[in-house]
Amino acid sequence: MNYLLVINFLGRIMLYFTALFSLPLITAFIFKESFYPFLVAIAVNLIISLILYSVKPKSEVFRYKEGFAIVGLGWFLISLIGAIPYCMIGTGFIDAIFESMSGFTTTGATIFDRIEVLPKSILLWRSLTEWVGGMGIIVLFVAVFPSIAKKGYALFQAEVPGITVSKVTPRLKDTALRLWEIYLLFTVLEVALLYLAGLNLFDAINHSFTTMSTGGFSTHTESIAYYRSPLIETIITIFMIVAGVNFSLHYYWLKGDARILRDPEFKAYISLLAIAIACLTILNSKGDLIESFRYSAFNAVSLMTTTGYASYDFDRWMDSSKLIILTLMFIGGCSGSTAGGIKVIRIYLLEKYSIHQILKEADPRTARVIKMNDRILKKEIIDDITAFFVLYVLIFAVSSVVISLFGMDLLSAVSAVVATMSNVGPGLGAVGATESYSALHPVVKLILFFNMWAGRLELFTVLSLFIPSFWKERW
Amino acid sequence: MNYLLVINFLGRIMLYFTALFSLPLITAFIFKESFYPFLVAIAVNLIISLILYSVKPKSEVFRYKEGFAIVGLGWFLISLIGAIPYCMIGTGFIDAIFESMSGFTTTGATIFDRIEVLPKSILLWRSLTEWVGGMGIIVLFVAVFPSIAKKGYALFQAEVPGITVSKVTPRLKDTALRLWEIYLLFTVLEVALLYLAGLNLFDAINHSFTTMSTGGFSTHTESIAYYRSPLIETIITIFMIVAGVNFSLHYYWLKGDARILRDPEFKAYISLLAIAIACLTILNSKGDLIESFRYSAFNAVSLMTTTGYASYDFDRWMDSSKLIILTLMFIGGCSGSTAGGIKVIRIYLLEKYSIHQILKEADPRTARVIKMNDRILKKEIIDDITAFFVLYVLIFAVSSVVISLFGMDLLSAVSAVVATMSNVGPGLGAVGATESYSALHPVVKLILFFNMWAGRLELFTVLSLFIPSFWKERW
Repeated sequence: MNYLLVINFLGRIMLYFTALFSLPLITAFIFKESFYPFLVAIAVNLIISLILYSVKPKSEVFRYKEGFAIVGLGWFLISLIGAIPYCMIGTGFIDAIFESMSGFTTTGATIFDRIEVLPKSILLWRSLTEWVGGMGIIVLFVAVFPSIAKKGYALFQAEVPGITVSKVTPRLKDTALRLWEIYLLFTVLEVALLYLAGLNLFDAINHSFTTMSTGGFSTHTESIAYYRSPLIETIITIFMIVAGVNFSLHYYWLKGDARILRDPEFKAYISLLAIAIACLTILNSKGDLIESFRYSAFNAVSLMTTTGYASYDFDRWMDSSKLIILTLMFIGGCSGSTAGGIKVIRIYLLEKYSIHQILKEADPRTARVIKMNDRILKKEIIDDITAFFVLYVLIFAVSSVVISLFGMDLLSAVSAVVATMSNVGPGLGAVGATESYSALHPVVKLILFFNMWAGRLELFTVLSLFIPSFWKERW
Repeated sequence: MNYLLVINFLGRIMLYFTALFSLPLITAFIFKESFYPFLVAIAVNLIISLILYSVKPKSEVFRYKEGFAIVGLGWFLISLIGAIPYCMIGTGFIDAIFESMSGFTTTGATIFDRIEVLPKSILLWRSLTEWVGGMGIIVLFVAVFPSIAKKGYALFQAEVPGITVSKVTPRLKDTALRLWEIYLLFTVLEVALLYLAGLNLFDAINHSFTTMSTGGFSTHTESIAYYRSPLIETIITIFMIVAGVNFSLHYYWLKGDARILRDPEFKAYISLLAIAIACLTILNSKGDLIESFRYSAFNAVSLMTTTGYASYDFDRWMDSSKLIILTLMFIGGCSGSTAGGIKVIRIYLLEKYSIHQILKEADPRTARVIKMNDRILKKEIIDDITAFFVLYVLIFAVSSVVISLFGMDLLSAVSAVVATMSNVGPGLGAVGATESYSALHPVVKLILFFNMWAGRLELFTVLSLFIPSFWKERW
């Protein structure tokens, strides 16, 4: 491991990160609120980043593992610095880093019981952390800063290790820029529509930030249920669906290329959503199908895209509906989107792989291949997906058992782990749509903190940091 | 697919199967009960098997897939015929095939609310189905009948597709015979010990049949709790642990070879049991550690070995304990044992594989291998294990969601699926230790019937039957 280079790069990233605090500072100015929470954060960040940056690497060796270390540790450091504003308004340390990690990872699990009482500048900071975390901090820096772009591919790979990171343009820097442009475009469009639908500008901006990032923080304790407006729910539902789609597909259709309609992941994503909404609508109808459809559609989309807004307390649904939404939370959105979870494409390919393997066991002598889009899938991609799935399930099982030892009931424990690993936000029971994570044991909060971090970076990047041999030069 | 050969072989196996009815017939004679339930079963079985056997194959082509078809369909047919005695005493068709499949697969899930009222000959039939299912019907026939032994390997592979099916002797027929001899030896030993501990001979035989097969049917509604005897619980606990170990390791230590002590699966199995018992003892102590240890040890062993006896209503345990026992039920015993579940060796290797894969992602250029017992593991074995794990989790998820649609609560639905797939028997909630499966919806029973069948034959054999291209000659 080229430690000096990793430290130097971390310093550089943290330095750029300072710029993000300008938006909450402007907000504090507009609403005449205290600047201190952000000024202190900026000061601490500058000191740390300059110390790190002052370390000069002896060698320019930059491989995947340096990329993994920079991205994994970078997200951790950014979450710590991002927690400073929360600490400054009186939030405890563990709660503050939980809220900060929850923001950057677009989880949207909150430790604040009452949202409206928070300063506007803090509310904007929460939403902003989700927005930059959604498309990716490193992706943003790759797009904007030439010095980062040079090492772009390894960093990009560590932050977005999705199996279909297809470069839409030959140069990675351009790809990152295009993705961020589309992201910004959709966000601006949603701000405009929400504003026209009656939200004030501040709420419109905040909710657009947290919709497009599939984050789910709201400026209201009641979340979207606060507005009691089918129109607003419809607008947000559409943008959540959009945010859950691979952004390179958006790039193509914006250019007039309709490959989205032939994409197996997109088709599976829409089909799964449709089936889930149909089941939930029927299961919870109680005679009023239209009302049931309204809540079922919003909450199914919100949970499958791992946004985590609530328009209804789904804890009041029956158990079969809870199992369906837990399943949706596991699956998540499409790869290359801002959504979390296992991702539709992985489930799709795992199902293909399973059938392939059954036939192979039954007839070992016949050669068989797995195809997607008429192209033969490489074995390395399948290995990557199966390992991801195994790790996901194992971490889920271990985390659930451990946090249940701290007195959480079964449904709350299981759903809290899924809700954080898949970056959804609210779970069921004690961490349900009308609750917060504030009452949990500090150790439980730290475990969930880890789950959010590992889940957002798709496991490998964060887990590698905990394997001693990862840090050794010769394995 | 060589259909004619498959049909002919099924006929041959069913013909041999007739012999099994002799034991309940003797029991009926001793206890002066009706012979009819078994005579009818024998008659039906003879007619069907002779019809099937009369089909003469045109070709002797016998590959893995013919083996899969014979074993998969064989277990299905045997479960149907084995259900006839239950039907004859007035049990409904779906209940009868459920009870029969539950027996042969050593699940031990019952649809009888009161056990003591059943005729002794029926009780013995229940226990006997578990006993022959435990070590394997086909393995038994391979050991005993030369005509089956000729095609032994493909059949053996389809019934015991465990990844460590090591032949302890050069000839497969001898291996099968040795395994059955050891199985018989332990069973006789347990009968003697239970008899000395105060059980009557009938109960001693029945419980030895269902301990060594990790089946879990009892002759009492209260299961082992009926005896209120720490001595009997201790004897049964020891034999359950023995039954959960790979029988080839038993073969070696009986010959004086102590390789069991170096076996990674055995060490992991004992360690997991010890950790689980320690956790459960502490979590449920309520001041009395010895009493808590007694119940924790018995039930942890009973559930991890997938036996499913109860000495305590573990539904009264707190939620963290329930998550621990659900985890044990998923894992199950060792490969090559009579236990069900994912198997310890698979979990052990999946953990190794995951770390291997994380390092590979972080540093793709360095070559790395996975070792077990100082030998490099073949990639095909890893592929087999990951596919098995993926299928296990997917079937678990789909089954849970579907049966919850029939009105089962979440914990009951999830635990019923694990309890049947892992061939444990009792679950939690509505299918808990003091309940039966009788009240479930018929469709739910059929899904669980499938889960038991697929789980016992380790998924691939049964699932292949449902893939259309499996049946085609050229894929």
